[in-house]
Amino acid sequence: MVTERKHDRAFVRTFFTTPTAVDEDDTAKMLRRAIDLRGMEAPDVWVPDNEDATAPSMRDEGVENIIEVVSKDGADFPSEIHPRVVWHRDSPSTRYQGFQQMLEIADPENGAVEYIDGFVIPEVGGIDDWKKADEFFTIVENEHGLEEGSLKMSVIVESGQAELAMGKLREEMGKPENNLERLFMLVDGEVDYTKDMRAITPTGKLPPWAELRHNTSRGASAAGLIAVDGPYDDIRDVEGYHERMTENQAKGMLGIWSLTPGQVVEANKAPLPPEEGSWLLEVGPKQVELDEEDGTYRYSGSRLSLEETDGGYILRVGGDEYELDEGELEEELLDRAEYVPSMNDIVDSMEEFEAAKEAGRGAIAMERAATLVIDGIEVDIQNDRMWDEATYQAAMTPITLFQDVYENRPDQHEDLAEMYSEDVVERAMEVGN
Amino acid sequence: MVTERKHDRAFVRTFFTTPTAVDEDDTAKMLRRAIDLRGMEAPDVWVPDNEDATAPSMRDEGVENIIEVVSKDGADFPSEIHPRVVWHRDSPSTRYQGFQQMLEIADPENGAVEYIDGFVIPEVGGIDDWKKADEFFTIVENEHGLEEGSLKMSVIVESGQAELAMGKLREEMGKPENNLERLFMLVDGEVDYTKDMRAITPTGKLPPWAELRHNTSRGASAAGLIAVDGPYDDIRDVEGYHERMTENQAKGMLGIWSLTPGQVVEANKAPLPPEEGSWLLEVGPKQVELDEEDGTYRYSGSRLSLEETDGGYILRVGGDEYELDEGELEEELLDRAEYVPSMNDIVDSMEEFEAAKEAGRGAIAMERAATLVIDGIEVDIQNDRMWDEATYQAAMTPITLFQDVYENRPDQHEDLAEMYSEDVVERAMEVGN
Amino acid sequence: MVTERKHDRAFVRTFFTTPTAVDEDDTAKMLRRAIDLRGMEAPDVWVPDNEDATAPSMRDEGVENIIEVVSKDGADFPSEIHPRVVWHRDSPSTRYQGFQQMLEIADPENGAVEYIDGFVIPEVGGIDDWKKADEFFTIVENEHGLEEGSLKMSVIVESGQAELAMGKLREEMGKPENNLERLFMLVDGEVDYTKDMRAITPTGKLPPWAELRHNTSRGASAAGLIAVDGPYDDIRDVEGYHERMTENQAKGMLGIWSLTPGQVVEANKAPLPPEEGSWLLEVGPKQVELDEEDGTYRYSGSRLSLEETDGGYILRVGGDEYELDEGELEEELLDRAEYVPSMNDIVDSMEEFEAAKEAGRGAIAMERAATLVIDGIEVDIQNDRMWDEATYQAAMTPITLFQDVYENRPDQHEDLAEMYSEDVVERAMEVGN
Repeated sequence: MVTERKHDRAFVRTFFTTPTAVDEDDTAKMLRRAIDLRGMEAPDVWVPDNEDATAPSMRDEGVENIIEVVSKDGADFPSEIHPRVVWHRDSPSTRYQGFQQMLEIADPENGAVEYIDGFVIPEVGGIDDWKKADEFFTIVENEHGLEEGSLKMSVIVESGQAELAMGKLREEMGKPENNLERLFMLVDGEVDYTKDMRAITPTGKLPPWAELRHNTSRGASAAGLIAVDGPYDDIRDVEGYHERMTENQAKGMLGIWSLTPGQVVEANKAPLPPEEGSWLLEVGPKQVELDEEDGTYRYSGSRLSLEETDGGYILRVGGDEYELDEGELEEELLDRAEYVPSMNDIVDSMEEFEAAKEAGRGAIAMERAATLVIDGIEVDIQNDRMWDEATYQAAMTPITLFQDVYENRPDQHEDLAEMYSEDVVERAMEVGN
Repeated sequence: MVTERKHDRAFVRTFFTTPTAVDEDDTAKMLRRAIDLRGMEAPDVWVPDNEDATAPSMRDEGVENIIEVVSKDGADFPSEIHPRVVWHRDSPSTRYQGFQQMLEIADPENGAVEYIDGFVIPEVGGIDDWKKADEFFTIVENEHGLEEGSLKMSVIVESGQAELAMGKLREEMGKPENNLERLFMLVDGEVDYTKDMRAITPTGKLPPWAELRHNTSRGASAAGLIAVDGPYDDIRDVEGYHERMTENQAKGMLGIWSLTPGQVVEANKAPLPPEEGSWLLEVGPKQVELDEEDGTYRYSGSRLSLEETDGGYILRVGGDEYELDEGELEEELLDRAEYVPSMNDIVDSMEEFEAAKEAGRGAIAMERAATLVIDGIEVDIQNDRMWDEATYQAAMTPITLFQDVYENRPDQHEDLAEMYSEDVVERAMEVGN
Repeated sequence: MVTERKHDRAFVRTFFTTPTAVDEDDTAKMLRRAIDLRGMEAPDVWVPDNEDATAPSMRDEGVENIIEVVSKDGADFPSEIHPRVVWHRDSPSTRYQGFQQMLEIADPENGAVEYIDGFVIPEVGGIDDWKKADEFFTIVENEHGLEEGSLKMSVIVESGQAELAMGKLREEMGKPENNLERLFMLVDGEVDYTKDMRAITPTGKLPPWAELRHNTSRGASAAGLIAVDGPYDDIRDVEGYHERMTENQAKGMLGIWSLTPGQVVEANKAPLPPEEGSWLLEVGPKQVELDEEDGTYRYSGSRLSLEETDGGYILRVGGDEYELDEGELEEELLDRAEYVPSMNDIVDSMEEFEAAKEAGRGAIAMERAATLVIDGIEVDIQNDRMWDEATYQAAMTPITLFQDVYENRPDQHEDLAEMYSEDVVERAMEVGN
């Protein structure tokens, strides 16, 4: 059992920001376009951004635009709405502006608040700065007759102070003088964090900040919150965006900022298991995916080659050469091969383990076999993995995520059924219950 | 001086778990087999595992089996015995079961407790959850007339909460309301940790969790405890197990879980210095070990080649080619070469430094020379390293570990003498004293 | 806005230690040589080292030498002076010696204290140990009629305990019972840290300790302090020293220990932007710098080759081959190419952004174009990067560092003007103000 979550969504894949006022005839144009998004193009959390994405001089108009657009079309929008207001740990006037923005947006007379799930607070500092923001939420709720704690608070972690504060949430959240139980997402903001840490890279690229992402994910885990990574601003680079998401997922950070509907689509799909399984083969610094062909898996690159000799094989990989007998060849390829299971495979394994458990067995071997083809030579490999309760529980995460998406995002049902087939979707919704 | 340790063993290389009850005629069969282990096959810490390794329905019988087997053969077992009981930060009923299991196993009337050194508590949460477990230890000790604090407590760190708790041990351990000084090992449990952090990898493999391991090692260092890594479950993959241990050692995590007597042998030997020194050469992404032959070190791979030209050399490495004169060649090879000292080498260096210190010198240059042979061409390289008190102290760790093993594990004396020769063992026991 | 710094220097590039007494006729010889350093050979912080660099039996004389040399030549020395005294978290007698050393060095009657900026305390433990040292500073100040808090305190972080303490500085620094606001630098000491963590590497090399460096940089950021890395003791290895500094800078750790004036020169220059911009191309595991020639950038290595075919191109990289049309080739090379901007380029970009901001635009695209030449074939690439306020702020760090250096180190003006030209220096001093 994971620390109980306080809010509806247990997972957030996508955090999509939109300028609240732009320099065009209709300053609310971007907001109007965003609130019309549906299906895979619609994020799990939509963030009308009245901070960095909007020019300071336009932010009063931004507040009005949020109210106008959300009160008009919020009822039909499929996702949560969390406007970002201004805030800064070092500036009382900025904090007071943020308070006023929240007070206005949340005023029930303006008609938007019933579709607003919370607010995003940027540039927080130490834990006492988080409490200042929380106190303003409480006052806003009290002034407007909203239930105390009903507005969720999310923060952008973009300072060393805020990174340290994440280690204290668990012990601070229960205290009677605050309502920090309203916390929802911990979102990294690597550009400002880089400034705050005074880091320099030769090309100006952002440092990877692996420790920050770990600490954000850990803070979320310890306090029952949701970890979200910051923006990936090379929008052209879809492959790089996916690599970043794969890295994040291995840290338990399953959500990421999206800057365009195109990025939203990629990020909505990324943590979901693939439709088809695949075999990967390690051939140098990277893994390559093998081509499926009539049930066999063919390697067609040039880095690895295989040759049959009298009573054996010669395997060449990059500059290295190995003389192997049949058993050694199978072992070598097994070491280099990895299987990426499909949604269907995962559901199969879980059902198999559940049946075994019901029959009183605590651990079973899951078998995965394939025929690889390299330079025309077929090699059969087979891989066993022991599954016990802990393996089963850890493998459950992508399924739980899928179930959370399915329950909360009816607008994506069609896309999901198309990706996976109706049958797999149905079984995935059953497993683990 | 390192923070003083509270318990007998200053190092734990191996943490070996055994199911307490299996579905066979003799349900204690695995326990009986484990308690007969001796020498390199016997772990530093043996953990009869009444949690995940044993089916829930068999755990009452598991308690009886532990008592029966340990009371009968515990006297002759060469290592510490720490049964793992059930526990969960989110389940009071599981915690109460864990308490009852400890109470029963530690009952002096059952005859096992005099051979039991402590208990392992899995699935702990924040520091206050650790205190709940500690309180049960205290009650067990009090009820059974055992000295307060005499049963050691070790925990499995398998949640973000527990990871954060490790940062608070030093300040919590002195408080009068607890007996947390009984803490002994901090053991990572990566499978459940992966679940708790909600991490996903495409193939289902465990993430590396480098930060967790650092934080565990740091927590152990700050509180005078011992850091142990979790299970490596690909039992076939001896090379992978060794790579993991090398990584861990560089983090100060010198112990690791072992699932089989074969893994115990590997893990007992891994942190001990090698019997023979060796030269490594960097030839691409990896280092290769050179072959010793009549006192020279020969490279026999195909990734690096060397050719003599008029007045110089051409060195080829992978796709790159370097034209070098003799001095540059020596420099280049010196940069690529590293020496792995043997136990004998380390003892030599320490004796040399101790003699220099006695003669009033604070720093000396340790010289290491070798003749490398590449494509028939001999190149002499020589490497100086300054040693001062700090270098000496840092180099002492493997020797201190060896001394701890030698003092506490007479059953391994024969193996150690065989590995290193009587003479080296004797000098290694003298150095630093 | 970054957390306000308490001291004059906002940046420290170099931390240069000198033995206070050596076994020669003039035991102060090394100190005399060091205090004569000027320009790029003079460090930002000079540390007469009365701890590890000086033999224990010479340390009383070391105190006298510091007093003699600093009182005589301190007035003309261009940098801050912070002697290191002895200290150990586990030894009251060592701590008392450290106190006596400070008391003596800071005695106004000895004439050195007016040139002494603070003291460096090694081997600190948990935060309460830091407070013991701070209390001695306060007593020294009080006894000698110095302003409370006027002596800066820096620590060497070389234990797990001290690493954890860095997470608490922000909340401890305001408390009325201490003067921890005097804290200035957090300096990693990896040799002793390795001992404290009980880490082992096969060759005896230091582990990379990436997490420690992150945590030091974060601690500095959260408390308004300065992060400095420990010694790099392979003095011959200039390339390795630079790689370490580049890594550190990406963590926000802009300072590093220097053991020789040669290392000081390298480390003083390393965080400053280069004089000339350059293009890097990824051709395998590493990036290579392209050769500029008449405004084009030529790749002259052998790992990457390009060939024109009917209506397309074949690009070969290592073992891989890509068939590409013109657009794909440009895209592929753009993905592999990165520009390292010069000081002049950075100042240009900042001025451009400032002008845009004044004209009411919040974000602009910065364009960077080049003609690459591979195997005689010219390919034009162009890279756009969006700059907003946050990008601008993050890009500001090297400029702020430059301005801090320029204001505090008049002895380096000549070197800087030579590196960058007078004009660039002038514009760099203007930008951002």
